[in-house]
Amino acid sequence: MKKTALAHANIALVKYWGKRDAALNLPAVGSISMTLEALSTHTSVDFRDDLPGDMLILNGRPAAVKQEQRVGAFLDLFRREAGITAAAEVVSENNFPTGAGLASSASGFAALALAAGAAAGLPLSPTRLSELARRGSGSAARSIYGGFVEMKAGERSDGTDAVAVQLQNAAYWPLAMLILITSEQEKELGSTEGMNRTAQTSPYYPAWIASSVSDLVAMREAIAGKDFQRLGEIAEFSCFKMHGLALSADPAILYWNDLSVTLIHEVRRLRRQGYGAYVTMDAGPQVKVICLPEDAPKLQQQLGQIEGIQRILPTAIGGDARLIND
Amino acid sequence: MKKTALAHANIALVKYWGKRDAALNLPAVGSISMTLEALSTHTSVDFRDDLPGDMLILNGRPAAVKQEQRVGAFLDLFRREAGITAAAEVVSENNFPTGAGLASSASGFAALALAAGAAAGLPLSPTRLSELARRGSGSAARSIYGGFVEMKAGERSDGTDAVAVQLQNAAYWPLAMLILITSEQEKELGSTEGMNRTAQTSPYYPAWIASSVSDLVAMREAIAGKDFQRLGEIAEFSCFKMHGLALSADPAILYWNDLSVTLIHEVRRLRRQGYGAYVTMDAGPQVKVICLPEDAPKLQQQLGQIEGIQRILPTAIGGDARLIND
Repeated sequence: MKKTALAHANIALVKYWGKRDAALNLPAVGSISMTLEALSTHTSVDFRDDLPGDMLILNGRPAAVKQEQRVGAFLDLFRREAGITAAAEVVSENNFPTGAGLASSASGFAALALAAGAAAGLPLSPTRLSELARRGSGSAARSIYGGFVEMKAGERSDGTDAVAVQLQNAAYWPLAMLILITSEQEKELGSTEGMNRTAQTSPYYPAWIASSVSDLVAMREAIAGKDFQRLGEIAEFSCFKMHGLALSADPAILYWNDLSVTLIHEVRRLRRQGYGAYVTMDAGPQVKVICLPEDAPKLQQQLGQIEGIQRILPTAIGGDARLIND
Repeated sequence: MKKTALAHANIALVKYWGKRDAALNLPAVGSISMTLEALSTHTSVDFRDDLPGDMLILNGRPAAVKQEQRVGAFLDLFRREAGITAAAEVVSENNFPTGAGLASSASGFAALALAAGAAAGLPLSPTRLSELARRGSGSAARSIYGGFVEMKAGERSDGTDAVAVQLQNAAYWPLAMLILITSEQEKELGSTEGMNRTAQTSPYYPAWIASSVSDLVAMREAIAGKDFQRLGEIAEFSCFKMHGLALSADPAILYWNDLSVTLIHEVRRLRRQGYGAYVTMDAGPQVKVICLPEDAPKLQQQLGQIEGIQRILPTAIGGDARLIND
């Protein structure tokens, strides 16, 4: 039976970088994210006996073989659990640019997990869905939930404790984010490759892992106390620590472009003028600005004056991944 | 008696960042630099009994009080050793922009140490001059020598072993450097303040210090073997590790501007095309490109096409600081 799901992207406020197990995709550090309303993936899965193999249509086009294989291997987890062998037709649409550091794999694998589980007739709890989504992409585990979400690094070797939990739902504290698209090109180095090189070559990697624990504690407290300034400061600290870590790899990993740096300086300048705005960035050149919803329009107006920005996506905090009727 | 000295700037290939003693200006890590022919400071010192206090003329103008005091405190080291009390007239000229991450304090305090020592009639060995220059500015200890110079972190609390030694003179291996001026503005955060914040807040600081030891070993080997590719790779590793360290401070320290990032990417692109070019950067937005002398003109031509560069200073490897006749 064909099932369709919708999941939102998320942006980590306390960053995930590094795996403790590559095969099970277990993170070396926990992370805390904010789910994003405006960025979503809409995915349908149909297990059918008449298909010669899995088929993936991504944003209206047949996907590359490598992507189809990655999705096929992911669907195997569901087929194994449901005891079925049928191939699937998967149709997936992002409403935002793919592969440019906007976490399309997060919303993508969360929506795919939800749709595949339902299509295979499996009664999966959100925790189990989160665990399965993680196998597709580390950050996808967080996109099962809306609001503020913590991904646990876990300790077990089978990964059953490396799952996300919702800290607070979207209604609890309606933060906003401006996503400043500085380039629509695909990033040069994917995050998995970047994480591997960092773990293998950076002298800072152990300190990165050790120091993430106090960031998680501080971020939980900032969310519990709705302390926006503290949330922003911890988010920037974690973000720049992650990018500093990547820079310390050999050879150095630099996800930024010229405009990224202009925008980092501009947000700092706006903050000195009294604006409540904090930067976070992932494995790509886009700059995300965390703000209060009432400040989003004037910040968008200010930042929109910077030359070269491709576009600005404003977004509210988003809700849970969910099954939908087509 | 009035004495005049000339010293060259230097750029660290293995970076210095962090102090083990602030008062004596003792470095927490060793460093290896290349002295630069084209960037120099020309300084005369005249101890005179008819002056009400020390006078500093910097680039043709009376210096700010803070700078005059810093120079006065530095001259006290020489007065104490020579048993004199006379105030000095100091006239100093840089042939390059001051305060924009081009190590004007390195050539400045090296030239000042040499001129002050001679003017005070002190018979100072290069090692002793290097130790004294360090008291003015950590990187000045290296500018006493030409060629490739190693600054030892040392272990003694009095700093007598925190001195520079020449690894090879300029004639041994005539490397070149292109200094790309991306901005002539003074930097926002001086290196001493940046080092202090990093040491106090970065979780990577202990790993930075520990990992510098193997960089020094590898750089000494690359110089001994005249292995240009290895020298460039280690220089970039050390540079990006230093900037990654600064980024991991709280709040993050970012010395780059948009053009810095464009140039980093451009040098990488040129390298993929077969050019021998490696980046190094200090506590400012200027990008320095290490290259072989025969490649300098074509690299200058390629990089000169990037919009926004204020100017390009090409330089050969430079010689020792020296006394000159005015």
